[in-house]
Amino acid sequence: MARLRLNADMGESFGPWKMGLDDKVMPYVDLANVACGFHASDQDTMRATVRLAAIHGVVVGAHPSYPDLVGFGRRSMACSGEEIENLVLYQIGALAAMCRAEGARLGYVKPHGALYNDMMIDHDRLEAVMRAVVAFDADLPLMVMATRDPGPAQELAAAQRVTLWFEAFADRAYDADGRLVNRREAGAVHQGAEMIVDQARRIALGQPLVASDGSELVLKADTLCVHGDNPESIAAIEAIRQALDALEAGS
Amino acid sequence: MARLRLNADMGESFGPWKMGLDDKVMPYVDLANVACGFHASDQDTMRATVRLAAIHGVVVGAHPSYPDLVGFGRRSMACSGEEIENLVLYQIGALAAMCRAEGARLGYVKPHGALYNDMMIDHDRLEAVMRAVVAFDADLPLMVMATRDPGPAQELAAAQRVTLWFEAFADRAYDADGRLVNRREAGAVHQGAEMIVDQARRIALGQPLVASDGSELVLKADTLCVHGDNPESIAAIEAIRQALDALEAGS
Amino acid sequence: MARLRLNADMGESFGPWKMGLDDKVMPYVDLANVACGFHASDQDTMRATVRLAAIHGVVVGAHPSYPDLVGFGRRSMACSGEEIENLVLYQIGALAAMCRAEGARLGYVKPHGALYNDMMIDHDRLEAVMRAVVAFDADLPLMVMATRDPGPAQELAAAQRVTLWFEAFADRAYDADGRLVNRREAGAVHQGAEMIVDQARRIALGQPLVASDGSELVLKADTLCVHGDNPESIAAIEAIRQALDALEAGS
Amino acid sequence: MARLRLNADMGESFGPWKMGLDDKVMPYVDLANVACGFHASDQDTMRATVRLAAIHGVVVGAHPSYPDLVGFGRRSMACSGEEIENLVLYQIGALAAMCRAEGARLGYVKPHGALYNDMMIDHDRLEAVMRAVVAFDADLPLMVMATRDPGPAQELAAAQRVTLWFEAFADRAYDADGRLVNRREAGAVHQGAEMIVDQARRIALGQPLVASDGSELVLKADTLCVHGDNPESIAAIEAIRQALDALEAGS
Repeated sequence: MARLRLNADMGESFGPWKMGLDDKVMPYVDLANVACGFHASDQDTMRATVRLAAIHGVVVGAHPSYPDLVGFGRRSMACSGEEIENLVLYQIGALAAMCRAEGARLGYVKPHGALYNDMMIDHDRLEAVMRAVVAFDADLPLMVMATRDPGPAQELAAAQRVTLWFEAFADRAYDADGRLVNRREAGAVHQGAEMIVDQARRIALGQPLVASDGSELVLKADTLCVHGDNPESIAAIEAIRQALDALEAGS
Repeated sequence: MARLRLNADMGESFGPWKMGLDDKVMPYVDLANVACGFHASDQDTMRATVRLAAIHGVVVGAHPSYPDLVGFGRRSMACSGEEIENLVLYQIGALAAMCRAEGARLGYVKPHGALYNDMMIDHDRLEAVMRAVVAFDADLPLMVMATRDPGPAQELAAAQRVTLWFEAFADRAYDADGRLVNRREAGAVHQGAEMIVDQARRIALGQPLVASDGSELVLKADTLCVHGDNPESIAAIEAIRQALDALEAGS
Repeated sequence: MARLRLNADMGESFGPWKMGLDDKVMPYVDLANVACGFHASDQDTMRATVRLAAIHGVVVGAHPSYPDLVGFGRRSMACSGEEIENLVLYQIGALAAMCRAEGARLGYVKPHGALYNDMMIDHDRLEAVMRAVVAFDADLPLMVMATRDPGPAQELAAAQRVTLWFEAFADRAYDADGRLVNRREAGAVHQGAEMIVDQARRIALGQPLVASDGSELVLKADTLCVHGDNPESIAAIEAIRQALDALEAGS
Repeated sequence: MARLRLNADMGESFGPWKMGLDDKVMPYVDLANVACGFHASDQDTMRATVRLAAIHGVVVGAHPSYPDLVGFGRRSMACSGEEIENLVLYQIGALAAMCRAEGARLGYVKPHGALYNDMMIDHDRLEAVMRAVVAFDADLPLMVMATRDPGPAQELAAAQRVTLWFEAFADRAYDADGRLVNRREAGAVHQGAEMIVDQARRIALGQPLVASDGSELVLKADTLCVHGDNPESIAAIEAIRQALDALEAGS
């Protein structure tokens, strides 16, 4: 059983505005998705976040976004494939420079927010992101969402010679297709550490989840996304970490 | 005699707005100072400019700036040394990614506008720029202005282990200290190709110029800055290129 | 017969980048759609454009956009109705201040680019724009596209108590619904001043156009949009102006 | 004795990032300095802040800044007088539109951060700010810092026909010229509510403060600046409010 790694969004402060408890989250995760200045972060924040990741031995990933700071990259934009390719490339490069300065290595790319959602439903955008990743470094994995059928994404990735890392969520309900249930619907976000840890453990073991329609859903995932916005969520991360460590120790 | 290379600012368009005759200038220069999105350029323009440089075998340099798009980076900003270090680093990295995507190599760094001027009179800022360059790549040369006494800049560079490239201007008058005469003063900008080509030839041969107070001024320069905004300036670049090529052929 | 007024986009320069021949266009138009800094223009450009309009007795209109400078406001963005209301309001206010400073009066509002297109197909967005206009000044007309059936827009406008000005195009082909034929299709843009002037005259007289499917199309329009990007388009504006003036003189 | 009004910076959130406890501060102040999007705030935040002020009967002031979001307007920029005039005008207009939409009235202008500091030491910049204020509304007061000698600012204001409101600080030490002691120096910021309330009371009564060199300093002030970043500072504001209310009740 390959290790299920924990990833979290980091470096989401901007100028004088602070967001996220990066120093509390960093000790528990394996992968830090670092904002690159288009939806959050600034040069000083990026550098400090990479330094913090390096101290904790956490792998740094680029977390590129549409250019929408005030909207935090959550609003879809009608960018062309070429525009997406180049804005992802720009952001990867900028973060890679911070990594070089801190003796760290850029380890992967995970698009943010609306760009992430858009690429999961629009193959042209997914290909544009892939072209950017390959153009920068053909060995750099791209993180995408684990769904019931990873086949289409894997075919595109094979054609572009990109390695995919599939990501699942421990605190969110899935529909039968393996898509996240919309946050506005009841039961979309799991409450309580027990339910979250149980879902994390199932994903790690390859055991089926129960989708929103009651069907069984198996998600093949390489990494689990966690959030560290408040003390409760930090506690949830810690509980997930312990559960996964226990699984590994027992395997 | 080392070859005196020609450099020019490139990639200064932004979104729908065009600036500069890059395709006309590129055939004549050795070094392209490519804007990195903070005072000009955008991701698509950067990529296209790097591609054009690669086609012509022109070395690409990063042309980082204060974050001031509307002011074209010409307005000094009270940034701290740490802020300057990180914003230069960010811009270098972003352009380096474009170079990787186009199979080109980032060859040097030349700060733009107010940042360039500020670093020539403020050693803290110059050191901050140097830290960024070294942090990215200790072998990357930094372009600075040739003045009468390059000693202070060379000492800082030696301490930081940065290679300096000194830059001179063929179309501008110098004062006795080897600083450019302010554009608002009469005679600050040379008119006529003959005078410009003569100054270029003198700089290439290490012959003294006549400073604005009548004194002799010898500038040790590695590269000459040229501008390609209009047909006249393209003609001047062509004339300088021919003059320098003739010198080299004769040496 | 009410006068068919000419409107043109103005103030589309940004910082050091120039766009448009505003001083050539201004003498021929009645209405200047002035960019407000979100897709083009800056504070100095806005002020100078308002001043130029005032000199020529041209009415100034706010030309608000999605916040997308590099994309020139041409890329649709998933903004909420509340976001659209407030960003339109902000831009109207900013331009209105320039008008006050120049002793001019803000005369109307015409959304730009993707926001304009989006509001014509999405009533939620159109209502959001209307709320902004009314919140600023209930007497301020909103310019929208003339289509075959202005009813739905008029109903919304009546509910919000907004005055609409309908805009038509002299240089573009229409489909049977009175929508502009996509620029990518053959025949979408009229070539030749004669055809353009003829379409302008028909619109002014309320005579039918021939839509792309051969059907007759009557567009009720208050204003005609013209563009002044190059000498040819200036000549076309001048020809339209003369044709309309002749119609008025003869009426 | 004219009433000494309390002013506080408000609306300093930006997009997803929250700053300030506006809802806690608003009940205690008379004047809300609302950021206009150049150093903080966005259109939605501006609108909500104006609405909150209107609910509490607090007068809204425009708080314009240099265009430096990431630096929070704290970094001086080499803007020309014309640029300053127009960027202040733009921001005033944008906020005034929010006021109109909320049935509030824009009551004054107070420049922010580096622009505020720069205008207090550079009369060209102060005049540029004054031109913007007058251009928008000749009856709009401009808030400036109370110093030992208000004469020079008053002369400029008289020439431009601007009304000045002088602002003092209850929690900061002053030097003999009536300038704030630099925050980096010991004793620059008063600790403890007692000392702060005492200074507020002295300013309200026109009684002398003790400057940092021991000399007496009388500051003629119309308003007192307070800050509401944390529960302690909210308590200090409440204490100042009570002290001033008690003075007024007793007068």
